[in-house]
Order: sequence, then C-alpha cells, then structure tokens
Amino acid sequence: MRYVFEHLGVAVFAITGALAAKNKRVDLFGVVVLALVTALGGGTLRDLILGTRPFWTVDVSFALGATAAAAVTFFAARFWEMPSTSLLIADACGLALFTMTGTERALAFSASNTVAVVLGVMTGVAGGMIRDVLTGEIPLVFRAGIYLYATAALCGAAVFVLVGPRMSPLVGQSIAVAVTLSLRLAAIRWRLRLPEFQARQKLPE
Amino acid sequence: MRYVFEHLGVAVFAITGALAAKNKRVDLFGVVVLALVTALGGGTLRDLILGTRPFWTVDVSFALGATAAAAVTFFAARFWEMPSTSLLIADACGLALFTMTGTERALAFSASNTVAVVLGVMTGVAGGMIRDVLTGEIPLVFRAGIYLYATAALCGAAVFVLVGPRMSPLVGQSIAVAVTLSLRLAAIRWRLRLPEFQARQKLPE
Amino acid sequence: MRYVFEHLGVAVFAITGALAAKNKRVDLFGVVVLALVTALGGGTLRDLILGTRPFWTVDVSFALGATAAAAVTFFAARFWEMPSTSLLIADACGLALFTMTGTERALAFSASNTVAVVLGVMTGVAGGMIRDVLTGEIPLVFRAGIYLYATAALCGAAVFVLVGPRMSPLVGQSIAVAVTLSLRLAAIRWRLRLPEFQARQKLPE
Repeated sequence: MRYVFEHLGVAVFAITGALAAKNKRVDLFGVVVLALVTALGGGTLRDLILGTRPFWTVDVSFALGATAAAAVTFFAARFWEMPSTSLLIADACGLALFTMTGTERALAFSASNTVAVVLGVMTGVAGGMIRDVLTGEIPLVFRAGIYLYATAALCGAAVFVLVGPRMSPLVGQSIAVAVTLSLRLAAIRWRLRLPEFQARQKLPE
Repeated sequence: MRYVFEHLGVAVFAITGALAAKNKRVDLFGVVVLALVTALGGGTLRDLILGTRPFWTVDVSFALGATAAAAVTFFAARFWEMPSTSLLIADACGLALFTMTGTERALAFSASNTVAVVLGVMTGVAGGMIRDVLTGEIPLVFRAGIYLYATAALCGAAVFVLVGPRMSPLVGQSIAVAVTLSLRLAAIRWRLRLPEFQARQKLPE
Repeated sequence: MRYVFEHLGVAVFAITGALAAKNKRVDLFGVVVLALVTALGGGTLRDLILGTRPFWTVDVSFALGATAAAAVTFFAARFWEMPSTSLLIADACGLALFTMTGTERALAFSASNTVAVVLGVMTGVAGGMIRDVLTGEIPLVFRAGIYLYATAALCGAAVFVLVGPRMSPLVGQSIAVAVTLSLRLAAIRWRLRLPEFQARQKLPE
C-alpha cells in the first residue's frame, strides 16, 4: 500500500513540477527534468540520509511514471485551462503523501520518533523547495500568505508516529495523509495561519 | 580514458563557474568556491546516489585541477576579452563530458539502462544548475531561448547505453560526447528548439 | 569538546536561519524549517560525503537544540531590537565552528589533508548558502562587498590540518575557530578584501 502512495506522490509532484514551468518558456524536455527533480528529490534526500539506495534507482517505474505524468501535463495544458490553484492543490496532495511515506520509511529503518518526524517533514517539503528554487521562486514553505504549510506536514508526521504502529498499515497511512491534506486544504480555503516573524521596529518620532 | 574525460569535464565546468562570477563582484576565493561547487557538484550527487565515495575525495587531483582552472580563468579574464558566448560553449563541453561519464559510471555499478540514462543526464545538468542557482540566475536548462539543453544530454546518454557496451571504451565514449556536444552547439548556432510549455489562455472578448 | 563546538555551531546557525526570515513574512513553523535546514545542512552534506549517517539522525539533541534556538529567536525578535549586523556576526561564529568540526571529522575518517580542508570549508559555507538560496538572496560567500568569507574558512581549516594533530584536541580546535572568527570579524570591521573578478571591458572610443 505504501508502494501505491509513493507512486501517487511521485506522479502528483511531477505534475506540480510541470505546472511550475508555466510562463517560464521551458521546452518539453526541460519540463521533464523539472518534473523528475521535483518528484524524486525529496525521496532521494531521505534515502541518502537513511543510508539506502534511492528508491528510484531500485525500481525504474518511478522515473517512468514521473516522466509520463509530466508529458501528459505538458500536452494537457494546451487544451484545458488549468485553474490558477491547481498547482497549490496538487502540491498539497504531494506534501501529504510524501510526508507519510518519509515518516514510515524512517521508522522502518528504526529511526527514533523525533528523527522520523523531521525526516517526514523534510521528504514532504524538499521536492517542492527544489522546484521553487530552480524556477526562481521563493519556496512555498517560506512564502508570504502561505498558510500552515510545514505545520500541516508536521501534524501528519506526528500523528503517524503516534498512531501508525498501533494500527493496520493501510489505516494508519490513510489517517496521516488525511490529516496533512485536510489541514493544508483548509488553510488554503480559509486562510488559516500561524503568527509571522516580526522584528521590533524603531518607532518613528 | 574515462579518467581523462572526467578531468576535462571538471576543468571545463570549473571555468564556467569562474566565468559565472562576471559582473557579480565575487572575490578570488569566492570564485574558487563557485568553480569547485560547479565542477564537483554533479559527480558528487551521482556518486552519493550510486552509494560510493565521491570521486574527488578518493583522488585529490580533481579538486586541485578545478582550483587551478578557476585561478587561471580569474587572472586571464583581466587580460583577454572573453566573448559573451564563451560560458555557453564551455558549458556545452562540460555537459557532453559529464553526461557520458555519469552514464558510464552508473552502468559500471550495474544500474539498469533507464536509471543510467537518468543519472547521466543528472550528472551533466546538476553542476551547472547549482552554479546558476547560487549566482541568482534561472538554470540554463530551464531558461527561455535555450535550445535543446537537456535533450542533447538525453541523446548522448541514450547513444552511450545503446552503443557503448558493444565497442571499445574509447570509441563509445567519444561517440557519446560528440553526440551531445554537436547537438548542443548546433542548437546554439541555429537556434533549434523543442516545443515550449504553453498554457491555454482565455481569449480576450 | 568537539561535541560542544558542534552544538554551539548548530545553535548559532539556527539563529541566523531564523533571522533570515526577517521581512519575508514567514510563519513560526516555516522559521523552524529554515533554521533546521541552515543548521543541519552543512553537516549532513559532510557526513553523506564521508559515508556515515548524518550526525543529527544519530543524536536527537541537535535537532531539538536548533528548534529551541529558532523559537527563542522568533519570540525574542518581537521584544528586542536586533542590530542589523547580528545576522552577519552570528553567521561568522557558525562559519568558524563548522569549518573546524568539518575539518576534524574529515581527518577522523582518514581523509587526506587537501580533502579535509575542502570538506571543512564546505561544511562551514554550505548551511549559510542553502539559507540564502532558499530566502532568495545571493549567498554571502559570493556577495558584493563581503570580505574574506571563504578565505577566512580556508585559513581556519588549513591551520587545523597543520597544527591540530600536534596538540591536545581542545587547544587545536580553539585555535582553528579563533583564526576563522577573528579573520572574518576583522574583515567585517575594517572591510578587508581580496581582488575581485574583473572582466576586461572594451574601452569606449
């Protein structure tokens, strides 16, 4: 089941990578490269830190799936109008799926709970970060008016660490994905947010 | 022979790293750091993913060669006028050399053909990507009007996977390098390109 | 003792990560993510290259310390006015501490002297580089008017390689940290600098 979630996350992040090329005049194969980096980046970092071979070098289907998702997006964007929030929503799905798979894989390598949460958040956040840096944007996770991005990932990872080991895998995984996704989507819809960084300013005299 | 190609690629990418410092007011040692990151970044990522020690930690001569190439460029740029395309052409050589060495090394670690092609393109593209991100540019591979960048790397890697194992190493390697380099140079010269990402726009009424 | 220096470096870099969020409208948890990436990034890269598990996955206290330092900075910034150089000075301390621990750890894994110096500079410079790229700034190490940044790290690493093995660990480590820190602070104070990259320009006629 984790395998299905991982494939879904790769495909969804590949789509966000392709959509990020909008208005940037990137050619077909540049879109595929951007999609691959976005889709495989977070998991690659996670696997290197855990000390295993990155998941896509072991199972070729991930790279092929990401390429296909990017190509379909590339051509579909010519015929369908994508609403401007489609990137945000696809990104929320990828965040939820990758945070869970990252946390689960860290636990499977017997990482402590704290490390598993950090690695889970990192897996969810890293691919999108790389995508945004490469296209010259400030990453979503740090951007003004972005509501509960990393916080949603943290809650999903924490729930999985607490609840996952006591339940059947499918139930625990689904709950963790649902927590992150619903928090993030609710935050986009109702503009929930945490307090921002504020520096004390000198008062004008 | 792969050893010579690898050294050439490192030196050429170090030169592009040093040239990228133009108009950015970077000091001598900052130029060396930028050159080292550009020249060693792609291969480091490749070796980490393959699970070996990065090539430059095993053989010191790569770091020394890159430093020397950067220093020579730093001083030469004061006396010779560099044509504005010199960075593009040096980058094309580095791309061709690193794509081939990346593909070959992946095959030597018994990666599947698909993974070897992905790793080859990644090795060729990553160093320049890091260079561009660090100097605040959109990476060449995603930039408007950049013709057949990743596509040239893909063709070189694919040719090497198909042809390389059936020939003497030197011939196979030279063919792969020639394919990428000539495609990329032809694309720069005659402005060849693939279709771009186009989003469907609402028609004005 | 290295353990104390490493903890200090992590805390100091976490503070710079949190300070970098100033004027960027990042929320509380985004600040924590930025602080963690800055504080753990350089050491993670070092450990991956050396082929060990990254230090913070083995000892949870590093991630907790960085989170605490970031949270304290987040709230303190609301009540105290931070002088505009506080980020630069905290960054100089982190640079000095991480360059030394990076060099020492590389030597402990029996890297050659040259590789140890390169890895030390990389460990010191990488975390801040990632922080600056993620917040959309040109990294300090390449920025105009930044005096002796990488050079200070190089001197500290070189001194440690030459002097460290002949002395008690505490003395050697303190000397290396003092060299980098005093060079960098002196450079900030008196605007010391190396020659910059200059391209020969056509003379106007």
